[in-house]
Amino acid sequence: MGSRRDFVHKLTVSAVGLPVLGYSTSLENYLPTFNSAAQLRVAIMGLGGYGTRVANAMESCKRAKLVGVISGTPSKIKTWQSKYGIPEKNCYNYENFDKIKDNPDIDAVYVITPNGLHHDQVIRVARAGKHVICEKPMAINAAEGEEMVKACKDAGVNLLVGYRMHFEPRTLEVVNMRRNGEFGKIMFFQGLSGFTIGNPDQWRLDKKLAGGGAMMDIGIYSINGARYMVGEEPIWVTAQETKNDPVKFKEGVDETIQFQLGFPSGAVASCLSTYAMNYLDRFFLNGKDGFAEMQPSTGYGPIEGRTNKGPLTAPIVTHQTVQMDAMAGIILNGEKPPIPVDGEEGVKDLKIIDAIYEAVKINGRVIL
Amino acid sequence: MGSRRDFVHKLTVSAVGLPVLGYSTSLENYLPTFNSAAQLRVAIMGLGGYGTRVANAMESCKRAKLVGVISGTPSKIKTWQSKYGIPEKNCYNYENFDKIKDNPDIDAVYVITPNGLHHDQVIRVARAGKHVICEKPMAINAAEGEEMVKACKDAGVNLLVGYRMHFEPRTLEVVNMRRNGEFGKIMFFQGLSGFTIGNPDQWRLDKKLAGGGAMMDIGIYSINGARYMVGEEPIWVTAQETKNDPVKFKEGVDETIQFQLGFPSGAVASCLSTYAMNYLDRFFLNGKDGFAEMQPSTGYGPIEGRTNKGPLTAPIVTHQTVQMDAMAGIILNGEKPPIPVDGEEGVKDLKIIDAIYEAVKINGRVIL
Repeated sequence: MGSRRDFVHKLTVSAVGLPVLGYSTSLENYLPTFNSAAQLRVAIMGLGGYGTRVANAMESCKRAKLVGVISGTPSKIKTWQSKYGIPEKNCYNYENFDKIKDNPDIDAVYVITPNGLHHDQVIRVARAGKHVICEKPMAINAAEGEEMVKACKDAGVNLLVGYRMHFEPRTLEVVNMRRNGEFGKIMFFQGLSGFTIGNPDQWRLDKKLAGGGAMMDIGIYSINGARYMVGEEPIWVTAQETKNDPVKFKEGVDETIQFQLGFPSGAVASCLSTYAMNYLDRFFLNGKDGFAEMQPSTGYGPIEGRTNKGPLTAPIVTHQTVQMDAMAGIILNGEKPPIPVDGEEGVKDLKIIDAIYEAVKINGRVIL
Repeated sequence: MGSRRDFVHKLTVSAVGLPVLGYSTSLENYLPTFNSAAQLRVAIMGLGGYGTRVANAMESCKRAKLVGVISGTPSKIKTWQSKYGIPEKNCYNYENFDKIKDNPDIDAVYVITPNGLHHDQVIRVARAGKHVICEKPMAINAAEGEEMVKACKDAGVNLLVGYRMHFEPRTLEVVNMRRNGEFGKIMFFQGLSGFTIGNPDQWRLDKKLAGGGAMMDIGIYSINGARYMVGEEPIWVTAQETKNDPVKFKEGVDETIQFQLGFPSGAVASCLSTYAMNYLDRFFLNGKDGFAEMQPSTGYGPIEGRTNKGPLTAPIVTHQTVQMDAMAGIILNGEKPPIPVDGEEGVKDLKIIDAIYEAVKINGRVIL
């Protein structure tokens, strides 16, 4: 791949800090544009399915470049080296990756490992002086998340969470309309997030590695979506768990949870998180003067939806390409994302997850 | 209007007790058809907006005929008499309507008055020996409903509840598919029922007359819908109330309630009842092998929707016309409705409403 440092685009940001959404089919109209020729050199930690997806998406990045890997599986490292042209000196395993500190050719590590490992790994990366991008959930509870935020602050590195939807143009189209008051006073958000999970032996169904079940993996999209769609932080949580298959979904691994959120304005949210239903990916936002509905709302493919004013028309993009280019801008140039993606944002989601699990346990309302 | 006694249609009922749905545009293919030439002669009690809607719809009925009125407003009676050709001898007020007992030209009374009045009025009609159709909610709590069921049983008259959706062809199209297993094991139902209520002085916002707020008026559609869409009776209820306007929505008059239901199979439902949001009328049913979504799902106009197999195609009808013809068949010929509409059915909804209000009060789960 040739260098892309020659790409320089004008920065177009609206008064509310959102990129101006050009409702045309031109990608250039939307994308956060570039005020620096620098490129973020990224190592990916964890070469599983999602790591591969990110690596492939980064092939099209203008400001981020995959340059290194961290994996416990030598054969995977070999494959990635030849596929993505990664030099031997940028390859690490889980024992020796603290040495990344001495590698001047890596700026940041994208941690894409099981949730339960994020805390220790992120702190190790921070202590190695590298910026961290951490897949969500950033940790398995808010206390862990806060330790990670502190460690990164202490080390003077950025900590970003893999919120790809925070850069997705159609999501931003809706958020922008909401911020501009086009739906009027927001009253209700509904998020349905789930799918039928397969192989019962995967880490996502292992309490220690996953930190929970569907909520940690897919329910978090409805939590995070409730926050950016409503535009407020919830003040209370209620939740109800249902477990139909206690063999597949062991103690501490949630199968299906319905949860509700209340916001300071009086808006409410009603959400579903499940590993036991076919692909369910729907957002609905209802305001006094309008509505938005998205389906799919957070899947990897094209986001589709409409508002009371018509279909969503912002460009369809590869989420991770846009995310990584935007995160490069945040890390390299201090650019402001349309919706926060820092560690504090990740902790906010985890506090809600903690509250949901607590609400299930006490079978009542948890005040945030 | 000429007599319609000459209409005789063949009865076409499927093995599961549902009318066979002919997926054509021909209304005749769907409608419960007639095995008797008899006609149900109905008096309407309560000549408000919905009473007028029912009266107009009955103009197109084949087996039900509006023949009498009961009202506290003499001028309304006059208007109705001239509009619908109602003889003086079939007109009553709220003081003297027990005398309907001596009127051989009225078979049934359709009670369309404020909810809080249903209990006493239905019992009086039953004691006058007339069949009763009672608008929903049939009463303001389950105890009242059970007394009404008993009174009608004791009097040997039918008690039917105004469940127009139980006869609506597109609703039955979905219910039929669910009964035939076309969606597989049912996992999730979502019902959003609400609108922004206007005039704060109306009886619907008066606790004594309404028995509650949005839940009694519009939330009941999601309750009832959950039951007929899932095809089970819930075993637990949780609920969360939000009140943003305590002036308009006084003590005991609910503005917005989110509620959740759990079913014996493990299916769950997530519903919204509100008087504070713009027209919200959505059902979503999710099974292991398919789904159905309807929007509008219970409004008076055409029901629109689709399943994983395509758009709903059953005929669009005037709900109340079909309802009243079908109810005539139930009362006159003992026909079986596609989904029950008797007093016991009404009590089931009220038990859930009681449980929702209790769940709000205790801020916890109520076992049914």
